[in-house]
Amino acid sequence: MKRLSILGSTGSIGTNTLAVVDHAVGEYRIAALAAGRNLDLLERQVAAYKPDLVCTADGETAAEAKRRFGDSCRIVHGKEGILEAAAGSGADLVVCGLVGAVGLPSAHAALQQGIDLALANKEALVVGGEFMTAAAARSGAAILPVDSEHNAIHQCLRGEDDGEVRNLWLTASGGPFRDTPASLLDAVTVEQALRHPTWKMGPKITIDSATLMNKGLEVIEARWLFDMPAGQIKVVVHPQSVIHSMVEFVDGSFKAQLGATDMRHPIQYALTWPRRVEGPLPPFNPVGAGPLTFDSPDTDRFPCLALAYQAVEAGGTSTAVLNAANEVAVQAFLDGRAGFTDIPAIISETLGRSSCASVGSLQELLALDQDVRRTALDIAGERSRSC
Amino acid sequence: MKRLSILGSTGSIGTNTLAVVDHAVGEYRIAALAAGRNLDLLERQVAAYKPDLVCTADGETAAEAKRRFGDSCRIVHGKEGILEAAAGSGADLVVCGLVGAVGLPSAHAALQQGIDLALANKEALVVGGEFMTAAAARSGAAILPVDSEHNAIHQCLRGEDDGEVRNLWLTASGGPFRDTPASLLDAVTVEQALRHPTWKMGPKITIDSATLMNKGLEVIEARWLFDMPAGQIKVVVHPQSVIHSMVEFVDGSFKAQLGATDMRHPIQYALTWPRRVEGPLPPFNPVGAGPLTFDSPDTDRFPCLALAYQAVEAGGTSTAVLNAANEVAVQAFLDGRAGFTDIPAIISETLGRSSCASVGSLQELLALDQDVRRTALDIAGERSRSC
Repeated sequence: MKRLSILGSTGSIGTNTLAVVDHAVGEYRIAALAAGRNLDLLERQVAAYKPDLVCTADGETAAEAKRRFGDSCRIVHGKEGILEAAAGSGADLVVCGLVGAVGLPSAHAALQQGIDLALANKEALVVGGEFMTAAAARSGAAILPVDSEHNAIHQCLRGEDDGEVRNLWLTASGGPFRDTPASLLDAVTVEQALRHPTWKMGPKITIDSATLMNKGLEVIEARWLFDMPAGQIKVVVHPQSVIHSMVEFVDGSFKAQLGATDMRHPIQYALTWPRRVEGPLPPFNPVGAGPLTFDSPDTDRFPCLALAYQAVEAGGTSTAVLNAANEVAVQAFLDGRAGFTDIPAIISETLGRSSCASVGSLQELLALDQDVRRTALDIAGERSRSC
Repeated sequence: MKRLSILGSTGSIGTNTLAVVDHAVGEYRIAALAAGRNLDLLERQVAAYKPDLVCTADGETAAEAKRRFGDSCRIVHGKEGILEAAAGSGADLVVCGLVGAVGLPSAHAALQQGIDLALANKEALVVGGEFMTAAAARSGAAILPVDSEHNAIHQCLRGEDDGEVRNLWLTASGGPFRDTPASLLDAVTVEQALRHPTWKMGPKITIDSATLMNKGLEVIEARWLFDMPAGQIKVVVHPQSVIHSMVEFVDGSFKAQLGATDMRHPIQYALTWPRRVEGPLPPFNPVGAGPLTFDSPDTDRFPCLALAYQAVEAGGTSTAVLNAANEVAVQAFLDGRAGFTDIPAIISETLGRSSCASVGSLQELLALDQDVRRTALDIAGERSRSC
């Protein structure tokens, strides 16, 4: 029986992970659940899965949690609490479904402890890829990607020699504005941006998909996961999302992973790896799945993707700056404080005001993350006032 | 340096194999070449590749070959000669590009000797799959499929557990008559049938592609290569031939191999396996490769596929009967002695007149093959006279 710690248990990845667990009776034991402020759902999860440890956002939510279900498990909170849920709960596998750079310390702590990591939290690698991969290499822990694209590449690389890979090809749905003229992107609403054409996901990643920053973050994620230069990581727009990604080998052969667009697939793969087991999902049928199309991404209308390539090429702290600015810009858009096309503008200006340094320690990186957020917030405020 | 024996060196597979060898200077040495009657091309191949052993069709061609280039190599001929080229030439790898059941004894002999086999000659497995796979298992020799579909599946199965495969999906171009109404198939000419929409291949396999018997033979080939029941081998019509085939795993995930439609790709893969090396071919670009479509095959218009499934389900000698009848029927069509829709009719009637027995020895199987050919020839003659 595998012991799981689920960070972000009430979010999209967390609930889908528990849905996979539901269909694998006796295979898993939930060691820890970490959530933010959705105590109603967390309470139901505690009753159903009986974790030993629960972590909530802060002291206030922890006090309320203790009142509600403090008899059944130990309750911790905040930054220290989530580190304990990740690295001190006796888990065999940590599922990290946190959103944003906030997930980096706990994901890193799990790897340091030699605990395998099912990683949906791409920002952890975008910000701290160097530390994450070094910790995994030292401890021998595996990083199992839950992002459908990287999960697809992980599958395609099974039994292959890393030195025989020519390019990785990340597929992109193109988001809800794939065919929207540039002139109309200014006026895009939050509601429109949250309507992803093929995948059902949380709000941050859905907005990232609409700006193509999600694909940019995935290029950086792939750079670390598969130790591949960004120039060998290609993006291709594939609106049907049937092919989840591809690997091109030096002999010119391509391998692709395809299937249903349901996050339970990559989650289950990460949970059962290196084995594959019968899943609870209806089977995919290629007949009628097409027509499948492939196009180049338009980085004029979607400059976020180009910004991400620039950041990863620049290296050092650049991707941490990119990520912090993007998190601030997306939140400003979701809160109605910025327009859709302000998102790349805020990121670009933040990158312009930040110097690209080499990465020191993880602590310095986290401090930089906070500094950049203040800069990006200022820039967002200035743009908002000037309109 | 790998020593190759190429059986069928002047055919489509043979010449493509030598084209791959041309681009891998110093990697290969040609131990033996076996060809039929194209002495002009064989003479040029002997001059270029300096084999130790050459095999021709019969005593007459061997005498002529000795006169032309007998000083540079040893020359053998016929059934005994080709066995020597396969199993007695000191090759590390035999490339079998022969067409029809005639390739079975030499392919089998190579496997018995523990020599790896790059197999394009699918009829060898269709007729003698039981003997071929048993010989490979005993000697430890590998059967490396050169058929693009099986080569694709071989690639998709790397690093996977055979027990975790749910289905194999063979893609079919659908051939030149994919959209031809049933009423017009009677009048199809040889020239039309030889015009394959996506692959450039020899005449027998091109006619088989037009009738969908090629896909039927591939179902039987896959049954033996991958030890999979026919019910778990699906066929999907994919006219673009970009996806060369797919594997569906028990977790619902699919893996596909895709790329250019050039036989040098699967040939090179078989030659360099388990390594992959830079190839001489222009790279495949997914952008603009679509739209890719997938449909169910129409076994009413193309009954050969259904006949093949029936034969493999029946087991025993049925697939040998199917193959012999098909070889006779295709030759009758190519010679103008039968119409296009006579092909499935001849096969069906031959199957009806033959009893399905369990397979005895390889010799019995080869004797049966000859008997069935006589029956099928009779049936073809009867049909021709009755028109």
